[in-house]
Order: sequence, then structure tokens, then C-alpha cells
Amino acid sequence: MTEDTTTKPPLTRAATLAKAHAEITANRLDALVAASPGNVYYTSGTYFMTQKNIPERLGLVSITSDDDPAFVYCTIEEGHATQESWLKNLRGYTEFADQPVDVLVDVLKKQGADRGRIGVEKRFFSAIDFERLRNRLPKAEFVDADPIFDRMRAIKTPEEIRILGDAAMATDAAIRVAFTEAAAGMTELAVGEMMVAEAKNRGGEKLLHLVLAAGANGFKIHAEPGTTQLKSGDVLRTDFGMIWSRFYLSDIARTAFVGRLEPWQDETYRKLEHVQQTTIAAMKPGVKASDVYRICADAFARAGVEFKMPHIGHGIGVVIHENPMLHPFDHTILEPGMVFMLEPAIRGRDGFYHTEDMIEITETGQRVLSRSADWATPMVIS
Amino acid sequence: MTEDTTTKPPLTRAATLAKAHAEITANRLDALVAASPGNVYYTSGTYFMTQKNIPERLGLVSITSDDDPAFVYCTIEEGHATQESWLKNLRGYTEFADQPVDVLVDVLKKQGADRGRIGVEKRFFSAIDFERLRNRLPKAEFVDADPIFDRMRAIKTPEEIRILGDAAMATDAAIRVAFTEAAAGMTELAVGEMMVAEAKNRGGEKLLHLVLAAGANGFKIHAEPGTTQLKSGDVLRTDFGMIWSRFYLSDIARTAFVGRLEPWQDETYRKLEHVQQTTIAAMKPGVKASDVYRICADAFARAGVEFKMPHIGHGIGVVIHENPMLHPFDHTILEPGMVFMLEPAIRGRDGFYHTEDMIEITETGQRVLSRSADWATPMVIS
Repeated sequence: MTEDTTTKPPLTRAATLAKAHAEITANRLDALVAASPGNVYYTSGTYFMTQKNIPERLGLVSITSDDDPAFVYCTIEEGHATQESWLKNLRGYTEFADQPVDVLVDVLKKQGADRGRIGVEKRFFSAIDFERLRNRLPKAEFVDADPIFDRMRAIKTPEEIRILGDAAMATDAAIRVAFTEAAAGMTELAVGEMMVAEAKNRGGEKLLHLVLAAGANGFKIHAEPGTTQLKSGDVLRTDFGMIWSRFYLSDIARTAFVGRLEPWQDETYRKLEHVQQTTIAAMKPGVKASDVYRICADAFARAGVEFKMPHIGHGIGVVIHENPMLHPFDHTILEPGMVFMLEPAIRGRDGFYHTEDMIEITETGQRVLSRSADWATPMVIS
Repeated sequence: MTEDTTTKPPLTRAATLAKAHAEITANRLDALVAASPGNVYYTSGTYFMTQKNIPERLGLVSITSDDDPAFVYCTIEEGHATQESWLKNLRGYTEFADQPVDVLVDVLKKQGADRGRIGVEKRFFSAIDFERLRNRLPKAEFVDADPIFDRMRAIKTPEEIRILGDAAMATDAAIRVAFTEAAAGMTELAVGEMMVAEAKNRGGEKLLHLVLAAGANGFKIHAEPGTTQLKSGDVLRTDFGMIWSRFYLSDIARTAFVGRLEPWQDETYRKLEHVQQTTIAAMKPGVKASDVYRICADAFARAGVEFKMPHIGHGIGVVIHENPMLHPFDHTILEPGMVFMLEPAIRGRDGFYHTEDMIEITETGQRVLSRSADWATPMVIS
């Protein structure tokens, strides 16, 4: 709800097109088509937020090696396309009267790509739209472009890293402030409200998610803040994210203790922190995402803690889980400019213990972008 | 964030399965597969909210004419599947290690449907998942199940209508309260905050969308509340929705005037209200959705107002735009138990004029569920 105060834009037309053209050449494509809101943002400079609630209202960007990329959008999004996008080759369609795929077909014909190799997002395109596209362009060869866009977006621009890092640090600080002001007797809801208010004061625009639970509430399916009052001896866990600089996301998890700290709570917390620091130290250029997962799993095993997480973290940007993902089957090699949320958790005997940090991969190793305070020591809410 | 206080559940296993079995028979299907969060909710009783942020984390329900329906879900959603669903035939998959489509293929084989006619949501299934499904089941015939689920969900249960009606009425009342407490000099943000707080007091759980703009701000792309102060003579427009009873949505638009009412503002407002009432009167069983659109377009023409809206309204439930839609190409015949949001708008010379009501189709005609106050007379904020 606040104005964008970024001085330099996180993305530029020139840098994005250079990346896209390199991929078009490397994959011998005649056209590369973006369709998901994240990839349309990346290639056009504007994000159709309404697609979150109305996914059928497609936006599409078709890029070739020489032409000005074409932007197919619903005329309801006219202002976004004309005033916020860096694209000039605009093709609006009228919702319900026109089929977005038919307009894309016209565009691909004009671009001379209708009998060529076309990269499309098969993870995002619906079966019905893809069927229509193939039927309308029987001579075209369709290539899965998901890995291409994943690669393009995985390396963040310096401005993206600044925005994401500022958002992560402000989210962390808001959690710390709320935990500092919290006290036994206060409800989960009251702590959550302080957290959101503090994040908004620091520039957070909209709430993305807020998990906040005291004690055994952390085991509930819906670990959202409720009317339960904090009491001495509780473990308090939050996983909190907001939207910043219009499109970028934050996602930070922290754990603290109400009133006092039991020795076994201290031990569990420090084990989790040790796993986190061991894993962070392993994150550097040349290491595979799957290796990071394995190193984390090993650290859990050495700490004698059961480990069953399908993933331990994820890329982040304008989508909450961006690739690469830190799971056993993602063999992407870490490179400088990648940004990860690393979030191991322990199912303790009194609740979930969870920590989540933003890690930037640098030329020489990594940088933690999300610690506004000392979380290595368990925080006791007094 | 509040507990569900509904006494009778909005959906029941028996009623949903009866609808599904009738469709399976009528369409000679061997299996009917739900995949989108809305249809998985409808057929399982639980909603995977995380799919809004993480769409790849599929939930799938496969229904046959005799078996217990099978529920394929990510083990991260274990609690939802085991404690919140009415399904007992559960098949969890481990994210990244398993492919949800492969688990569905196993299920369809066990159900004996792997060589039969299978209804799938082609609007929701991704091209890559559908390709995998077809490759794994080459003998199966795949039928587009989107119209089937649309029909099932279009007729709301009495409990759904009660929840949706209460939510619409409370949203309307929250707007009225905020407009009543508003005054010249107050910012759009302050009015919006009063609106959200009032809706939360009345049971609204989470903000869905909040458009709120004074005067020419209504023409902006991002008509979200900002630091602009209301001033005498402004038209003030809002389009506001929240989440209620955990999964159901509200969506109400209203227009008012700050300080005084100019004659031409009064005229524009009354034209819009006349269009609204004319269209409402035409909404009854037997009339087509496209006819409702045409009647509204005619009313605009008779009022001498330019009309370019691609649609004038939509079904609503657990998804903001549910079918039937009130547009020229939707020829669904209105039936008792359908619920629509009717939302014509006028681009006035000083801002947007917008009104939106919830209309239930009854046996004999229709009922307006969203007017907590007299909106026929233009409201002047003093």
C-alpha cells in the first residue's frame, strides 16, 4: 500500500533480454514464451497480481532473437501493460470474447516462429491451453522452457538482492521486536499483530503468511495465531512473510521461549542452530543443491535428531518457492548471486523448533542476510 | 485466525458423492479426478491453502462409481488429509521424491479405471503433468471434467448460501461503518483500516482484496488505499473482500461521496443503481447467464452510458470467480441455489462508480443477500 521507493529498478529490459537471448541461442529456439506471473514479471517488468485470484486471466510474453518481444495481456490489465511494462509490442485481448492462446498463435506467426522450436512453460500452461496451442500450430516443436526460466531467475540482480536482503532483515527485526515486547499472558494473536504492525512500519506492504504458535499449538494443522495465552515454559515458533517493494517476498522462521528455558529446550535449540550453521558454512559456489541437503541431513544425524524433511530450503524472489530447491533431487550447482531460504526444523517434545535464514551465495562463499539480532543464543521472553 | 463456529458443515460427504456419482453415470466415466484446490475441497472436505503460494504441491481426489474415493496428497498436508477430510482411502506422497501423477496412476489402476474414460480438470492440470499422465496410461481416454465440476459447485448447499450470505452482509456492513466514520481530511488508508477492522470484528478472518480510492485515484492502475486525504466533492469507491468460515469468500463494491453531492454525481450514481436493479429483477430460474449480461448491457444503453465490461459478474464460493460467469458467452441456465456477485461499474468523469451485490437465485426469482443499509440513495460522508 506504500509507494515504491526503489531508486534503481530490480530488473532492466536490457539485462533480461540479454539473458533471454543467450538462452534462445543455446537452446536453438525460435521463440521463448513466458506465461506464469513470475516469468511474465521477469520478462516484461510488470506483475499481474490479479492472477493470484484469477489464474485464467493469462499474460504471455513471446521473445525471439531479433524482434521486440510481444506482450499478450487481458485488456483489464491495460494500465499495467502500457504504463508499467518495458515492452512496446502490445496485444490486448478481451476476456471471454478472445482466447489468449489464439492471440499468442497470431503473435508467433508474425514472429515467424509458428513452424519452429518454441519454448513454453509446461509446468504452468494448462493442459487445455497447451492442447489448443498444439492444435493451432501443428508444425511447431514445443520445448519445455521451465528450466530455462529457472536458470534466468536463479541468479538475482544486485538490486534484487538488496530488496530481498532488506526485506529479510526487516522481517527478522519485526519478529525480534514482537518477541521482545511479548510476555506471558499475552495471546498468540496479540504477538502476531505486533509483528505485522512492526513489519509494516519497516516497509512491509502486505501479509503473505503468518504461522505463530505457542507450545503444542505448533503441532496443530493450522498453526496460525489464536487466542491461546503464552505461558512460562512454552516454546514459541513463528514463520512469517510479507510482500515488499511491490512484488518481492520475505519468509523468516524463528523460535523463542516464554519465561524460562528448560535445559532440554536449550539443547534442542542449540542443536538446530548448530545444524543451521553447519549447513550455511557448506553453501558456496560449486556445491550442488542436493549436496547442501545431504550435508544438512548428516548434521541432523550427528546431532541424533530424526530428520524427515523433503526439502530444507528454497530459492525466493517474487515467488515463495523458486528454484533451485534444497532437496535431494535438485543437482543445480550453486553460483554467486543465488539467494536461498534455509529452514531446518526439529519436532521437539514440546513443539516445533524452526529457524529460517536468507543466504546469498557470493564469489567466495556466502553471506547471511537475515540476522538482525543474536539468534545463536536462545531468546527468553520475560 | 478465529475458530470455525459453523454448526452444520457447508458440505457433506454424502451430498457431494451423490452429485459426483450422478455426473459419473451421465458422462459414462470410469473415474472423475479433482485437482484444483476448489474441487479438491468440494470432493474431500479440506482445502490445501498452501497451494495458493505453492501450486506444485498437488492434491488429487479420484472418484469412481463404487469405490471409496482415493485422496492423493503431499505428506506435508498429512493433518489436513487425516483429520479434516471425509476421505479414508489415503495415499500420501513425499514431495520431490515422488511424482503426484505417478501415485494417481497407481490409484487409477487399483480402481480399474486405467483403461477407461477418466475425467480430468484440463483447465487446472499442467501440460507437463497431463503429458505424464497420458504417457503412463496410454489406453485411457481423457475427458475434460471442468464443466462437470462447474455444474457440481454452481448449485450451493443451503449451508454454503448461509455462510456466503452472512459474509456478504457483514462485508457490506463493514463498508457502511467505515464510510459512516469517515470524514474529509482522513486518508484512504485510515478508511481502509477501519473497514478491515470492522469486518474482522464481524468474523472476517483474512483480507482477500481491498481497493479503496478517492476521486481520480480510482483511475489509477493500483487503486489501493494510499495517503491521499478525502476532500469534499470526492467520489469514494471500494471493492473489498475477506475470507470467512475458513474457506469462503466475500466481494462487495460500494461508492459514496465526500462532504457534498454534485447533481451530476447524483445522476451517475442513480443510473448505476437503476442498471443494478433492472438486472437483478431479470435474474431468475430459466434465464441464461448470457441473457443477464445482455439485459444489463441494454440497461446501460438506455441510460446513455458507455458499456465495455467483458463481464458484469460471477459466481462465488471458495474461489473468487466461479462459474457460471455473467458474460456474453456463458449460456448456463440460472437455477435455484446459484449465487452471483453482480457488479456493474461506470467510468464517471471524476472516478469509478461501482456497486456489487450478492444475488441468490430462488425457486421464484432472486434474493439480494448483501444490502445491510440503503444504498439506493447516494451516501454522503459528512
